[in-house]
Amino acid sequence: MSQLLKVQNFNVSSDGIAAGASEAQSLESPFGLPGAERLFGWAGATASWPNRTEPGGSRGLDDYLTRDFTHNIGAEIMGRNKFGPQRGPWENEDWRGWWGDEPPFRTPVFVMTHHPRPSYTLSDTTFHFVAGDPAEVLDQAREAAQGKDVRLGGGVSTIRQFLAADLIDTLHIAVAPVEYGSGVRLWNSPDDLLDRYHRDVVPSPSGVTHHLFWRK
Amino acid sequence: MSQLLKVQNFNVSSDGIAAGASEAQSLESPFGLPGAERLFGWAGATASWPNRTEPGGSRGLDDYLTRDFTHNIGAEIMGRNKFGPQRGPWENEDWRGWWGDEPPFRTPVFVMTHHPRPSYTLSDTTFHFVAGDPAEVLDQAREAAQGKDVRLGGGVSTIRQFLAADLIDTLHIAVAPVEYGSGVRLWNSPDDLLDRYHRDVVPSPSGVTHHLFWRK
Repeated sequence: MSQLLKVQNFNVSSDGIAAGASEAQSLESPFGLPGAERLFGWAGATASWPNRTEPGGSRGLDDYLTRDFTHNIGAEIMGRNKFGPQRGPWENEDWRGWWGDEPPFRTPVFVMTHHPRPSYTLSDTTFHFVAGDPAEVLDQAREAAQGKDVRLGGGVSTIRQFLAADLIDTLHIAVAPVEYGSGVRLWNSPDDLLDRYHRDVVPSPSGVTHHLFWRK
Repeated sequence: MSQLLKVQNFNVSSDGIAAGASEAQSLESPFGLPGAERLFGWAGATASWPNRTEPGGSRGLDDYLTRDFTHNIGAEIMGRNKFGPQRGPWENEDWRGWWGDEPPFRTPVFVMTHHPRPSYTLSDTTFHFVAGDPAEVLDQAREAAQGKDVRLGGGVSTIRQFLAADLIDTLHIAVAPVEYGSGVRLWNSPDDLLDRYHRDVVPSPSGVTHHLFWRK
């Protein structure tokens, strides 16, 4: 197992919800959830948050997790719902993702979609649009990663697909103290994964609880 | 503050002791403490431990801390007592440190000593032997680090010197559940640093408690 597939800094509510229903996602509401910043605010408060524009930020536990985001990562795989709110064939190729001219990935990114679209590069990140099942896409990403690990970025249905195919080596899921009641669920309970994974449960002073899983 | 000075993975007992009395240190007992592996065993159990020779190891909380060891580090400063048990002028320059032919630092290392000795390189690590006060040695290390951060490796009296000079930006101290009663102390209590630093206290399932400090 020389090239791991890793989920990093993935945020869910205390009831396991990571996004609103697919139809609630829009350009104005990427997560399709009200107050979604309550899910990922812990990361934005850290010194190493990739989108930080002002100096400062915490350098405690949460910062170890945000600065690990790029550690030995050579490629990312993401589902189409992480890439954007569009569904069906690409109608407007001017839309190039949520992340502006300097996406935080700085590696090849493989967007899973059955609708073809040419690759393009923004700063250090190149987006490729690929069809195929999880194992096939992972093969492509591993090759592009040139010996480094591969990050599985989400969204939640993509992570569930890769869990079902038993392809994920480690997961860091940050559970926030907020309850949504409805939306797209990663799990019914974090204990769902304990048949296949070891786990450390690490409460952070920021209020989130980090669940760190690695294969048995 | 673009180049931090960081203490990382420094281990103390629950009563703050990091090493035996200076005269107890020897080639056979680097820490001069009985059962010193109880202090650093948590790190050796992780997948990212630099000296790991066999596959396996945990990938939970403790592994985040060990794999952060080299993150954006461009140089290390260490006291002579971390480098070796010798005192006074160098009598045997064949002794080249505890770490074998591939020291885990992989950067320039500045060993603080008033006894001159030529620099030498082992694999990716070059050891320099420098006199000067903490601020002067830090200037040299920062220049060698070429924009990256600098690690302060220890031992305990060196860390105390740099704390007294108020030169340290972040500290990760792992407190192990073992009591020594006597030896060289980092602190009377981890609370000693709270006038100058924020702190996260993070208990690990491995039994150690990580104290993560960063400047106020």
